Amino acid sequence: MQKMPDIGFGLWKVDRDNCADVVVEAIKAGYRHFDCAADYGNEVEVGEGLQRAFGEGLVTRDALWITSKLWNTFHDPAHVEAACQRSLNDLQLDKLDLYMIHFPIALEYVDFESRYPPEWFANPDADNPEMRLASVPLHQTWAAMEGLVEKGLVDQIGVCNYNSALIHDLMAYAKVRPSVLQIEAHPYLTQEKLIRLAKQYDIAVTAFSPLASKSYVEIAMAEQSDSVLTEQVVKKVAEAHEKTPAQVILRWAVQRGTSIIPKSTDPGHMRENLAITDFSLTERQMNTITALNANRRFNDPGVFCEQAFGRFHPIYD
Amino acid sequence: MQKMPDIGFGLWKVDRDNCADVVVEAIKAGYRHFDCAADYGNEVEVGEGLQRAFGEGLVTRDALWITSKLWNTFHDPAHVEAACQRSLNDLQLDKLDLYMIHFPIALEYVDFESRYPPEWFANPDADNPEMRLASVPLHQTWAAMEGLVEKGLVDQIGVCNYNSALIHDLMAYAKVRPSVLQIEAHPYLTQEKLIRLAKQYDIAVTAFSPLASKSYVEIAMAEQSDSVLTEQVVKKVAEAHEKTPAQVILRWAVQRGTSIIPKSTDPGHMRENLAITDFSLTERQMNTITALNANRRFNDPGVFCEQAFGRFHPIYD
Repeated sequence: MQKMPDIGFGLWKVDRDNCADVVVEAIKAGYRHFDCAADYGNEVEVGEGLQRAFGEGLVTRDALWITSKLWNTFHDPAHVEAACQRSLNDLQLDKLDLYMIHFPIALEYVDFESRYPPEWFANPDADNPEMRLASVPLHQTWAAMEGLVEKGLVDQIGVCNYNSALIHDLMAYAKVRPSVLQIEAHPYLTQEKLIRLAKQYDIAVTAFSPLASKSYVEIAMAEQSDSVLTEQVVKKVAEAHEKTPAQVILRWAVQRGTSIIPKSTDPGHMRENLAITDFSLTERQMNTITALNANRRFNDPGVFCEQAFGRFHPIYD
Repeated sequence: MQKMPDIGFGLWKVDRDNCADVVVEAIKAGYRHFDCAADYGNEVEVGEGLQRAFGEGLVTRDALWITSKLWNTFHDPAHVEAACQRSLNDLQLDKLDLYMIHFPIALEYVDFESRYPPEWFANPDADNPEMRLASVPLHQTWAAMEGLVEKGLVDQIGVCNYNSALIHDLMAYAKVRPSVLQIEAHPYLTQEKLIRLAKQYDIAVTAFSPLASKSYVEIAMAEQSDSVLTEQVVKKVAEAHEKTPAQVILRWAVQRGTSIIPKSTDPGHMRENLAITDFSLTERQMNTITALNANRRFNDPGVFCEQAFGRFHPIYD
């Protein structure tokens, strides 16, 4: 597929148990863009789902956009191709449409046999996990990513969770330009400047966690009461368009020029999240939602790694 | 000098007309740390002041700590040594104690004859200044900075205006480690996480604009009413210690472990800014001042460059 569809399906936190079914359902619902990652731990199951869909004639490979991501422990150029190949094997694909650096964080290598996906820690003792940095500069990892394009393993490459300063630097050393930047973005974290900068560099932006806290309640990183879906202004706009609050928020994201990768395991919700192309928000409605910005980030390794591993590692400060 | 004194004298915006006198006065007042930069446009005059102070026997070179900074237009490794040498020549010194990358922004080269300091624009037409980026990755500039240490032109090297993500990356490629990070920091922009990260990497932190808006009122980048010195809590702490509000703010900065580089051209204020070692703030007083944080940045190229050159170039987002 040549162009990344605006609305993708996010595989983060989709249980392996029902992941293949979910992928088939998502394809039936109309999804053509799947946002995967080694770290999500379910690429084998995504691959099974894709194969089933191909076998049933639901869709062809060419009609899909498949993204995967290089995990932190594989930043060393010596491991980049093997990591990509592992994702390709698991997904049962010859080529990815997009492969991204998952975080601008290089961690000590963990071999495939020891633990896969390796998560954030290097030592084998999961009861006392230690997050250990690796001295791998981002420009070396990017050069290895460029090598994957050259070898034909991936069509495009990109970065996730980069900030403006990292993007300037990346643009100074990139021989193959990043085509996509994936960042957390939603009405509580609107990221206007970063998105504007990416566009200035002709980099498309994918917003992860487009519904804000929704992804984080189940992993105890947010409260139910944090939901942007219960904001009065959102409800009001939803009523005006006879859409759900979630549809309004997703429409806002696409209308401002970001692609989105919501996740849902419920076929009804899957369809709901796709059904946002038949209405438009007014400029005033757009602005009302943008005004909810509180620079509130739910996915912050600086917070998470300290809680989980006692290692302070901010990347957004 | 081996160790950077906590309280330095900042040369930014010191007029060339009286700069040499100001430097002599500052040395008389007790300053031993001078924070210079090519971009401040007054290194020749700083050099004259230093020479006069040496000649008058006020101080010896060994008793001083002199910092200068590599300007944005000299990031290309081909120009780094010449830029450093130019600062050394202007300052009439053989060696700098510290040389820093001024901004993580690489701009098109402007030669010494065309315009010096070159400021932010590349073209000769100052009426229509154009900010033009150069494709020089930070790791290449850092390698050239390391070369200056090797050649004995500078004793230590550091970076200014880097954020946490850039610092992680720098630490991954640095052969000579950065010894100092210089950032804007004051009670309205407390930068706890960035300072904590720098300490974790054993990088000293210098806070510029320690009195917040004070430096920016005269260049129309802040209002008089923005002053942190008029905050009730600051006045109260000042009264309790029989110190001025400025002394309390500077004491807060040093006590939290940052060095500071206030500027003053008035000998009375120069002494006032140095006289902050004979009292301590209580933990409660420290916290009260820290609580003024509003993540308010006065020195932001993303804002400034758009106003001045119509070029959007955020580095903190």
